[in-house]
Amino acid sequence: MTLQNYLESKLLGVAKLRNNSNIIAVARGDLPADLLLKGGRIFSTSTKEWIELDLAITSGVIVGWGSRDAKEVVDVTGCYLTPGFIDSHMHLESTKLWVDTFVSTVLPHGTTAVAADPHELANVLGIVGVKELIEASSKLPFTFGVCASSCVPASHFESPGAEIDANDVAELLKDPHVIGVAEMMNYPGVIHGDKEVLAKIAAAADRRVDGHSPGVSGSDLDAYLCAGIESDHECTTYEEALEKRRKGMWIFLREGSAARNIAELSRMVREFGPYRCALCTDDREPRVLIEKGHINDCIRVALQSGITLEDALLMATANAAEYHGFNQLGTLAPGYQADVLVFNDIETLEPTYVYRAGQLVAFEGKVVPGLFERLDPPKSMKSTVHLESPVTGDELVLPPSDDSDLVRVIGVKDGSITTTEQIITASEFRSRGVNRLAVVERHRKTGRFGRGYTVGFGIASGAIASTVAHDAHNIMVVGGLSQSDSADMATAVNFLAKEGGGQVVVQGGEILAFLPLPIAGLISDKTAPEVAEEMSKVLAASKTLGSEVQEPFMTLSFLGLSVIPELRLTDLGLVDVRSFELVDPFLGR
Amino acid sequence: MTLQNYLESKLLGVAKLRNNSNIIAVARGDLPADLLLKGGRIFSTSTKEWIELDLAITSGVIVGWGSRDAKEVVDVTGCYLTPGFIDSHMHLESTKLWVDTFVSTVLPHGTTAVAADPHELANVLGIVGVKELIEASSKLPFTFGVCASSCVPASHFESPGAEIDANDVAELLKDPHVIGVAEMMNYPGVIHGDKEVLAKIAAAADRRVDGHSPGVSGSDLDAYLCAGIESDHECTTYEEALEKRRKGMWIFLREGSAARNIAELSRMVREFGPYRCALCTDDREPRVLIEKGHINDCIRVALQSGITLEDALLMATANAAEYHGFNQLGTLAPGYQADVLVFNDIETLEPTYVYRAGQLVAFEGKVVPGLFERLDPPKSMKSTVHLESPVTGDELVLPPSDDSDLVRVIGVKDGSITTTEQIITASEFRSRGVNRLAVVERHRKTGRFGRGYTVGFGIASGAIASTVAHDAHNIMVVGGLSQSDSADMATAVNFLAKEGGGQVVVQGGEILAFLPLPIAGLISDKTAPEVAEEMSKVLAASKTLGSEVQEPFMTLSFLGLSVIPELRLTDLGLVDVRSFELVDPFLGR
Repeated sequence: MTLQNYLESKLLGVAKLRNNSNIIAVARGDLPADLLLKGGRIFSTSTKEWIELDLAITSGVIVGWGSRDAKEVVDVTGCYLTPGFIDSHMHLESTKLWVDTFVSTVLPHGTTAVAADPHELANVLGIVGVKELIEASSKLPFTFGVCASSCVPASHFESPGAEIDANDVAELLKDPHVIGVAEMMNYPGVIHGDKEVLAKIAAAADRRVDGHSPGVSGSDLDAYLCAGIESDHECTTYEEALEKRRKGMWIFLREGSAARNIAELSRMVREFGPYRCALCTDDREPRVLIEKGHINDCIRVALQSGITLEDALLMATANAAEYHGFNQLGTLAPGYQADVLVFNDIETLEPTYVYRAGQLVAFEGKVVPGLFERLDPPKSMKSTVHLESPVTGDELVLPPSDDSDLVRVIGVKDGSITTTEQIITASEFRSRGVNRLAVVERHRKTGRFGRGYTVGFGIASGAIASTVAHDAHNIMVVGGLSQSDSADMATAVNFLAKEGGGQVVVQGGEILAFLPLPIAGLISDKTAPEVAEEMSKVLAASKTLGSEVQEPFMTLSFLGLSVIPELRLTDLGLVDVRSFELVDPFLGR
Repeated sequence: MTLQNYLESKLLGVAKLRNNSNIIAVARGDLPADLLLKGGRIFSTSTKEWIELDLAITSGVIVGWGSRDAKEVVDVTGCYLTPGFIDSHMHLESTKLWVDTFVSTVLPHGTTAVAADPHELANVLGIVGVKELIEASSKLPFTFGVCASSCVPASHFESPGAEIDANDVAELLKDPHVIGVAEMMNYPGVIHGDKEVLAKIAAAADRRVDGHSPGVSGSDLDAYLCAGIESDHECTTYEEALEKRRKGMWIFLREGSAARNIAELSRMVREFGPYRCALCTDDREPRVLIEKGHINDCIRVALQSGITLEDALLMATANAAEYHGFNQLGTLAPGYQADVLVFNDIETLEPTYVYRAGQLVAFEGKVVPGLFERLDPPKSMKSTVHLESPVTGDELVLPPSDDSDLVRVIGVKDGSITTTEQIITASEFRSRGVNRLAVVERHRKTGRFGRGYTVGFGIASGAIASTVAHDAHNIMVVGGLSQSDSADMATAVNFLAKEGGGQVVVQGGEILAFLPLPIAGLISDKTAPEVAEEMSKVLAASKTLGSEVQEPFMTLSFLGLSVIPELRLTDLGLVDVRSFELVDPFLGR
C-alpha cells in the first residue's frame, strides 16, 4: 500500500491512525474523551478474558482503558463489550439488498465490517459495477472491504455480461478499498498453472488472495497453495478443513442460507483452537438476515456446536481483522477504531448498543433513525436484461435422442449447493419426478440457450425462473415436463426480460408471484422486510407448483455454477465439473 | 508495498511467490522435486501437531506434503522438522560481528531470519550506514529484515555522528528490505505527541511500528498505543507484559546477554498462550551466540520456564513471521519458503541440518564450507573516531562542589540495563566503591565531554573504555578515584581514538587488553571465535581491575543510554530519565 493509499485507507477503518496528537492528548488524560462506556466487561482478544473496566473513545478511536473525563458517559454496568463483528467472506448480491439497506440490516446484529466479493455485479457489469459499489459503500458508516473479483466468468463454460482479466484485477487493486483478490474459484486453472489465472494472483502483491477449493486435497491442494492462495470457505467436512488448515490455509467456517458448515467444522476448532480460523456467511438471504441475523448468528451456531464463546468471538473479530489486514479493527484496545458492541445479555448475541467508529449506529435491534440517507442505485446498474428475441416453449425443450435414452440429470441435494450426476432413463422421468431445466443468455443478445434436466426439485407443473444464476446470471428456468409447462418456462423468461430482472413463478400462463430485482437483475431497490416479503410470496408460489426443496430459487441459482461438482447447466451446455468439460446430456451418444 | 517492491521482496523471502508455474507443476506431481526430506515429523504451526510425512522442496519453496519423485532424497526418519527460527528484534551491532559472520554464526543454531534495527550504525553513520548494511546483507542466504531506525539520537540529550529525521525514515521505508519502523524508544516524545516523532510513525503507513516502553503503563501506555505503536520487547515483569498484551500489543519475550526476561514473562504465556507473543535477543554478545546459541537458546530458556515446546516454537516461527509480515516464512506448508530445521534430537534444540530456501546452509553446528564469500566492510564504516584533541586525566574529573557534597551517582545493577539513582556523600566515595565515569564526544570533534560517578562497578584502579556506548556511541570510560586512574582513563580514550574504535583496559599507563572494533567503532572484522577470544581478554583484564559486574563492557555501554531509567551520563551531562531532564550531579546545588 502506498502512503497516499494508506492515508485514504485510514478513513475506511482499514489502517491505524498514526499521527493524531489530539487523540494522544485525550489518551494520556490531558483532554476529556468524547465518550466513556462505564462499568462494562470488555473482551480482550489477546488473552480471551473478560475484563471489568471503562472504555474511553474520542474521534472514533478507543483512547483508553479505565476511567477518563468524558463529555458523554454511558452506563453499561454489567454489560459485555466486544469488537464489532466481521464477515470474512460474503457476496452482497446474495442478500438481494442494495448496500445501504444491507448495512442498515446487519449493523443492528453487530456486523461493522465485511470482506465482500462483488463478483455477481462484476459478472453483469464488470469493474465499472465494482467501482460504483465501492463509491456507494464509502458513504456508509461501515467498513465495506471489497475483494477484486478474480473469476469473471467463473469458467469458460459461462457467458457473463462482462469479463475481468488480470489487468482489470490490477486496476481494481489500486483502490485502497480493495483489500485483496477474491475467491479464486477456478481452482483447476490454478492447479494447471494457467498464465492468465496466475497473473491475477500475482497482481495481489502482498495483499490477500482468497481461495475456493471444494474437496481439493493432496497434491492438487499443494499446487493450489503454491500459487499463493491463502484461505478457503468451501470446506464441508472436518477432514477437508483439517488438511487445509494443517497446510497453513485460513479456514472460514461458513454459515450461509443454503451452505451451512459450522456444525460439521466445529470439531476442528474444538480440537485445535481458533488460530487461522474465521467466520463467514458467503450467501445469505434477506429473511435469514432479519430473522436469524448475520455473523452473530454464525457465533450462535458455533456455540450450539460446542465452540466456546471466546473462541467464536475471536474468529468473528481479531482473527478476521488479522487475515484481511483490517489493522484498526477487531480488538478493543487503545489506538483501535471504536467499533464496539454492548450486550445486556451476551447469550442472545443481539447487541443492545452498536457503535461504529465511536458513533452510535444501532440500538436494541434497530439502526439509529436518520443514520444515513438512502442511496440511489447507479443508473448503469438498471435495465441489464437483454434477449435477442422472446423465447418459445419448444425452444427450451431438449430434443430426445435416437441413440440413447440414458440421460445425465442434475441431482439436487437440498440444503447443499453441490449437485450429483444422476443417470435416468427418459421413460422414468415422470416416475422419478424429473424437471426440465434451461439457461437463456441475457447479457449480449446472443440468443444462446442451454437445455437439460434436473431431479429433486419436484415441480409438478408450471415454471420458476430467475435472473440470479451464479455466476453468469443468465436467466435460469426450471419447469414441469408437459408442453404447457414448457410454455410457462418461456413465459417466465420473457416476463423477466420485460421487467429487467427478478424471480418469477408461472403456472398456466399466469404470473403467480414476482420478485423484482431491477439492480443488475440481482438486487432489489426496496427495504429488507419488503424484499423478504416478496421472496416469501415467490417461495410460497413455487411450493404450490410442488417444489420439494426448502429454497428453490437459491438452489436454482446455483445450478449454473460451473465450478462446483458434479453436474451443471450453462448456456453452452451440460458441464461435468469433475472432468471440467462439456458433456452430452445423453449417455453414450 | 508497491508491486515493484513486492517483486523485489520475493527475493528476500518476505513475500509469497505467486506465479511460478514450474513450482506448481512440481507440486501437483507432474515434475520431480529438487529435494525430498523423507520420514520426518513436521511441526504444524496451525494446529501445534507433529505430523509424520515427507516434505518436497523445489526452487527454494515447499511444494508438497507427502511422497514425491525427487532428484535428491534425504532420509530424516524420526527427526523433528520445524520452520527456521526468527529473531523478532535484535541489533547486529551488539554481536560485534559483521553481517556475514553473524549469519554464519546463527545459521547453525537454526536462525534463518531476523528483524534487525541497525540504530547503532545509524547513530554513527546515518542512513548511509543502514543502506550499506542492507546492500551487504542482501548477498547472504538469510532473511535480514531491517527496521528503519526511528530514534537517532535516542533523545536530544545525546550527540551521535548522524541524526535520522522523519524524511530519512520515509526514505528508508522505500526499500523493500525495510519491514517497518524500529523501536520507538523516545516514548516520552510519543506520549507528549511531538510532531517530528509522530511523523516518523506515520511514515510507516501500514507497515509495523515497534515499541520500546520499559515500565510504561496506564494512560501513558494508552497514549503510546494511540500513536500506533504495536509491539514491546522491554517488559521485565509479568504484570507489565500482561497489561501491554491485554491492550493489544505484541510482546517480544527477550533473552539478551544483559537483559534476560523470558523466565519472568513465561507465566504470561503459560496462562494465556502464545498469541501475539514472539521471541527476541535484542542484544547478544558473540560468546553467548557461540556457547548458548541464538533463538534456539531463547526456546531452551522458555522450556526451562515451563512453556511447552509447541508454544515456544510458535513464538519463534509463525508468530514472528505474522507480526513482521514475513508472509513466506514461519510455516512448513506448500507455498512457503523452505527454511527448514531438521533435529535428530529436538531436546537439544541444535538442528542437525539447516535448510534456507531449500539450500543446505548448515550441518551439525557448522555452516556448509564455502557457503558464501566473506564480505569486505564498506570503506565509509572505517575510521569513525575523531577527537578535537587528546584528552587529559584532569579534564575527565568532575570538580567538587563548594555548595554540596551529596552526589547523584549512577547505581549499576548487575544483569540489568536499568540503573538506579544513588545519593552518596563525596566523603563516602572510597568506602562505597564509587568510580569515576566520563563520556567523550567522538564523532564531530566538538571537544565536549560529560563527567560523573557510578557505583557497583567496583574498579579498584585503572580504567576501561569503549566506543560502544548506546546509543550515541561516544567514548565511555570508567575508572578509579586516584589521579593515576584518571590518567589511565585519558590514556584509554586517546588510545581508542588512535586505533579507530574498540574496547580497552588500561592500568598504570599500560594497555592490558584491547578489542579492536574498526567498523564504526562498534563491529569487528574478525570471526566470532576471534572476537569472543579478544572479548574474553578485555573481560579478564577488567576483572583484574576489580570489576564486580559480570559483563563490565556491556554494562558500561548502557550507562549513556538516556531513555532507560533512572540515571544516565552523556556528553551533555547527567540525565534523569524519569523526569527526562538534565540534572546537576550535586544534589541541592
